[in-house]
Amino acid sequence: MRINVKVFIVGCLLLFSCGRAGGAEQPRSDPLSSWNDGASKKSIVEFVARVTREGGPDFVKPEERIATFDHDGTLWAEQPMYFQIMFAMDRVRVMAPKHPDWKNKQPFKAVLDRDIKTLAALGETGFLKIMALTHTGITTDEFSKFVADWIATARHPRFDRPYTELVYQPMLELLGYLRASGFKTFIVSGGGIEFMRVFTERVYGIPPEQVVGSSGVVTYQLRTGGKPVLIKDGKIEFVDDGPGKPVGINRFIGRRPIFAFGNSDGDQQMLEWTAAGSGARFMGLVHHTDAEREWAYDRQSPIGRLNKAWDEAAKRGWTVANMKTEWKKVFAFEP
Amino acid sequence: MRINVKVFIVGCLLLFSCGRAGGAEQPRSDPLSSWNDGASKKSIVEFVARVTREGGPDFVKPEERIATFDHDGTLWAEQPMYFQIMFAMDRVRVMAPKHPDWKNKQPFKAVLDRDIKTLAALGETGFLKIMALTHTGITTDEFSKFVADWIATARHPRFDRPYTELVYQPMLELLGYLRASGFKTFIVSGGGIEFMRVFTERVYGIPPEQVVGSSGVVTYQLRTGGKPVLIKDGKIEFVDDGPGKPVGINRFIGRRPIFAFGNSDGDQQMLEWTAAGSGARFMGLVHHTDAEREWAYDRQSPIGRLNKAWDEAAKRGWTVANMKTEWKKVFAFEP
Repeated sequence: MRINVKVFIVGCLLLFSCGRAGGAEQPRSDPLSSWNDGASKKSIVEFVARVTREGGPDFVKPEERIATFDHDGTLWAEQPMYFQIMFAMDRVRVMAPKHPDWKNKQPFKAVLDRDIKTLAALGETGFLKIMALTHTGITTDEFSKFVADWIATARHPRFDRPYTELVYQPMLELLGYLRASGFKTFIVSGGGIEFMRVFTERVYGIPPEQVVGSSGVVTYQLRTGGKPVLIKDGKIEFVDDGPGKPVGINRFIGRRPIFAFGNSDGDQQMLEWTAAGSGARFMGLVHHTDAEREWAYDRQSPIGRLNKAWDEAAKRGWTVANMKTEWKKVFAFEP
Repeated sequence: MRINVKVFIVGCLLLFSCGRAGGAEQPRSDPLSSWNDGASKKSIVEFVARVTREGGPDFVKPEERIATFDHDGTLWAEQPMYFQIMFAMDRVRVMAPKHPDWKNKQPFKAVLDRDIKTLAALGETGFLKIMALTHTGITTDEFSKFVADWIATARHPRFDRPYTELVYQPMLELLGYLRASGFKTFIVSGGGIEFMRVFTERVYGIPPEQVVGSSGVVTYQLRTGGKPVLIKDGKIEFVDDGPGKPVGINRFIGRRPIFAFGNSDGDQQMLEWTAAGSGARFMGLVHHTDAEREWAYDRQSPIGRLNKAWDEAAKRGWTVANMKTEWKKVFAFEP
């Protein structure tokens, strides 16, 4: 396994440098202009050419050109922690004035004190408490409004920019390129479905009905006066991560993707499921290798760990996009 | 309540006859040519004109033109019983040779003997046993193949035609008319999501990803040799009926419809949810009034009961399409 990975990495590096050395600047009209002419761009362009060539052996009808993308770490950043958790912590701060006892009560105290160390020490139970408190007992409309307000005003601690500016320019181009090639693009994320849907259309051109994610139980109620509402309960209904991703794809899309992109072990099964279909397939992973422009992490990272899926990618020849060497630009705001 | 309904019915009848008496034959290019010029057609056409008039007070952006349709009894027939149950019973007959004990074991014996009376007497438990047996313990791909084989060969007992010919021509026209007007059309049905998806694209032009329905738990497994499969478990996961319909709409579509059509009490909450949004809204019900061309049933019917939703439609001025008086044609095969 280890040898395979090494061989693979060396192979990749060679390919990348060949690409960089040999490639002239792309013309302005290049739909993937933020990608270097490396192995990943080549594999994407060749795949799209194969499945869209009418009469060709690998032609796929437009209605079956389903492309699925993980969200955190694949379309936008996920460090120092998933942005939805940043939202939840900010919600705790907004709600705190009505809960004076939180000042001395964990995990709220740690959130209010911005004491990440203690928060981390409290572990999953602490996070789950915060998520439950900030994501439930309200209507779906109220929740959407909270997210909309937050996404419009909150700023990322490292970059001091709105979180929606932390989307990857090369991936935005890839989404557009696929759609221009007749693909229907979907998000398939472990993140909360109702959280993402607030902004995916504006940010990625992906409408709510093409967003698949984790969800809590929601119930229908008629309020006094006959106004119907959907209430977000505390119970987790579906976790769209790992083996949940093929299940979510089956449930929400009802067709197997021919193109899938992720960045972590949580995407492994989505890629396996995509690969197992007949005909031409594309499986890709974003590899976070750029600590300067973004972050560098893989096998050991508690967030977005890329370990088993990386090994499988190496074994099976899936595309691994090296952020540092293959992306000319990570974020649109870079000079 | 009773008086309201009566007033409403009389009003409808008056409107329908006005429509019939006053309306000239529609020109050939009429996208709703199987609808008489009655109140329902008028309300549909007026609604679509309002929401698509750019600059008008009720204009709705194309991406928010979400239309949801119930399936059984709204897009195709549902008598003498839901077609998915007919499929399940046919599956029992296909599976029977490998289960010789079924000849003397209920509810299978009743299915094999085509003894509808006994089957009905066995009630819900009998049906659930048949559904569980025919819908679970297999992969999603196997299930789709069974449905595809059945839908290609099975024939409706009364009409002796494929079940897919039992779709309503006026509703097909309505789906096309809405799509031509920039709407995205969805099915939101109590029926099984994986059952419908096999044929909705071919029959209605509605792709799998725009079909919302009831579902069972599905799990991801790697079979020997590494082939991934999705297995249909026996456990019910989601019932997309009644108050489940707004929940299903929220989960799968993530936007509130502006147009919804049903035919039974199971659609009441979908119509309430649609009605409760801001801006122009259309809520419609198919009323089965034509025992000659189709079937006539409403308040007392065990299948597709239209009772409470009808009362609410009367009170709130929702559109109720009278099949007998408003549809020139029910099925495309009529002379």
